[in-house]
Amino acid sequence: MTIGIVGGGQLALMLCEAAQDLNLDTVVLCEHDDDPAARVATKVLLGAATDASALAILSQQVDVVTFDHEQVDLDQIASLVDAGVAVHPGLLTLEAATDKATMRTVFANAGFPLPAFTVIEAGEDDRTITHDVMQLAASVGLPLIVKPARGGYDGRGVFVETTTADAIERVKVLSASGRVLVEAALALDAELAVLVARDLVGNCVVYPPVVTTQVNGMCREVVIPCALDDDVLEEAQLLAVDVAEVLESVGILAVELFIVDDMAVICEVAARPHNSGHWTIEGTSASQFENHLRAVAGLALAEVEVLADAIVMVNIVGNDDGDDPADFVQGQDLGGLHLYGKAARPGRKLGHLTVVGNDLDTVRGAAWDAVAQLHGGLG
Amino acid sequence: MTIGIVGGGQLALMLCEAAQDLNLDTVVLCEHDDDPAARVATKVLLGAATDASALAILSQQVDVVTFDHEQVDLDQIASLVDAGVAVHPGLLTLEAATDKATMRTVFANAGFPLPAFTVIEAGEDDRTITHDVMQLAASVGLPLIVKPARGGYDGRGVFVETTTADAIERVKVLSASGRVLVEAALALDAELAVLVARDLVGNCVVYPPVVTTQVNGMCREVVIPCALDDDVLEEAQLLAVDVAEVLESVGILAVELFIVDDMAVICEVAARPHNSGHWTIEGTSASQFENHLRAVAGLALAEVEVLADAIVMVNIVGNDDGDDPADFVQGQDLGGLHLYGKAARPGRKLGHLTVVGNDLDTVRGAAWDAVAQLHGGLG
Repeated sequence: MTIGIVGGGQLALMLCEAAQDLNLDTVVLCEHDDDPAARVATKVLLGAATDASALAILSQQVDVVTFDHEQVDLDQIASLVDAGVAVHPGLLTLEAATDKATMRTVFANAGFPLPAFTVIEAGEDDRTITHDVMQLAASVGLPLIVKPARGGYDGRGVFVETTTADAIERVKVLSASGRVLVEAALALDAELAVLVARDLVGNCVVYPPVVTTQVNGMCREVVIPCALDDDVLEEAQLLAVDVAEVLESVGILAVELFIVDDMAVICEVAARPHNSGHWTIEGTSASQFENHLRAVAGLALAEVEVLADAIVMVNIVGNDDGDDPADFVQGQDLGGLHLYGKAARPGRKLGHLTVVGNDLDTVRGAAWDAVAQLHGGLG
Repeated sequence: MTIGIVGGGQLALMLCEAAQDLNLDTVVLCEHDDDPAARVATKVLLGAATDASALAILSQQVDVVTFDHEQVDLDQIASLVDAGVAVHPGLLTLEAATDKATMRTVFANAGFPLPAFTVIEAGEDDRTITHDVMQLAASVGLPLIVKPARGGYDGRGVFVETTTADAIERVKVLSASGRVLVEAALALDAELAVLVARDLVGNCVVYPPVVTTQVNGMCREVVIPCALDDDVLEEAQLLAVDVAEVLESVGILAVELFIVDDMAVICEVAARPHNSGHWTIEGTSASQFENHLRAVAGLALAEVEVLADAIVMVNIVGNDDGDDPADFVQGQDLGGLHLYGKAARPGRKLGHLTVVGNDLDTVRGAAWDAVAQLHGGLG
């Protein structure tokens, strides 16, 4: 069986690695032959994720199409579905994952806990923008969060505005090029991510929730076990499963949640494996990549068992000198090290590293020592 | 012409005083013959504001019925209206002023800026209460404000709850005896009151907005001129007029507003003269009491001119010793002193005092010196 993957980044890379263990072939549609997934895919197809003819060719070569990222053209994907191509996750999920305004509206209709929000249409007139933003500020106070409905990731395209005038100005600029979501800024106790694998017939397997420590909007470290109360974690898992069911997702759905006074509130969703779940490769009996593939391939999901008392995943981010972490590995066994083979640039995610063990402090120390070495710090 | 006033408190007292200047007779329906208004009304009718037969007798003796307070039975008032009695303000206004849940719903439908809110019905089941409160907390964060829809005044019956559990518990207790309003707690720059006099044909006269300095939920001091920007004050006045028009109010409508980042957000309304407007007796060419009477009597409203550069009104509140301020007047001329003739009790509003002049610091000093004297402090 052959899995087509749209996009060739590190998620596609790790999907391809997991596919090998499952005896699945992979065809990756990516733009460059040195993209992370290109070196491990069974076959590489060069082209843009939004190139209709490339998508058509990919579809002909595979049994099912899935995704490394959400930067796709939904009309093109709809055409594939109409032509009988198996696409997982499907359109309902992709629509919510690619457009935050659609997502919020779907979730509001489902009665899910959400920050109060308003959607400003692309090209909306100044008077309506002013009215709608002021109405929201009147209703929930300041600051307001302003986001383009599409295209942001890792905290890019999230603007915190402390005055209505600033929020209105930001919306005016952003709405010139697309829909804009404006929402209440909640006082958070934590941000949590819950991964739900859902198969073609609706069975779900939920991974343990993790707190996502954000630095400049990018996930920096994931620590298991999660320090929050069991009640909160259980509620978060139940909500994430409800979300997966409403979206009829297939594969991994990553549900990002705000925790407000022990209550889980939906932030957003991603319809693919997620940075917050990289620890599942070494840390569980069945990684998020394995279960994503199982789901989209129509296989039974694997039950998930956590394999250690303490697990720490740290992202390896390009340092200011532009050093390549690969230059600092120096033949040492750094455990669960995953370098994505991307050109080193400051601030770019170049890899991650997972350490498992019995004692959290020891594990965490080992993880950060290894990261320091990879940045040339302990060489 | 004879004006019937339901309730005999200090507002009725000052309405009766203003009526004398307009050559209007007054009949006050009050519970005790020593209520503040009883000593100046043309005629006193003893009875409860919710006694249908007393209301019927009052109606027969007067040309129009108006109100000192909102603690009335709307069904009884509706019966009067059906029977052809002129009642001003009318039912639409009274409904909004007596029930905060109705008020919020009417204003939300009109598109006015409001704190985000939810209404819990009387006797609602625990599951719905929990769901609705958690939904609001998810949407707007904490703390939440919980208020019974009816009956509160001067900050009584306003609960600030910092956890969802506390908010849910509070709602459960309060909803056993009536509808409950739960709303977002906004970070306020100021609280403002705007008085709008509206006549029978819809003409409006707006008083200058004033910041209401609240101590324990009770208005303590009003200072003119207001320190806020002219733009904010103008917006507040326009909004207050819009509110008066939506409610088709007749007489004084006091619109209490929150100022959030220079934006006016409706807090609540009172359909009668208001503590925040007592300064208009000495401070303007036509007091709120005069214009209330003019409106309900079908007379033309008087234009309002502010008569001084600096005006300070201070409430005289019963001290902990239970002293009667009247005992400390000692024959001195304390300017705009109004003692309501109420029995002195700690924390009770016993009167107010307005000082006008050219220099704000001087005026304010004089006002507070006088209040200190009335509390026995400078005797």
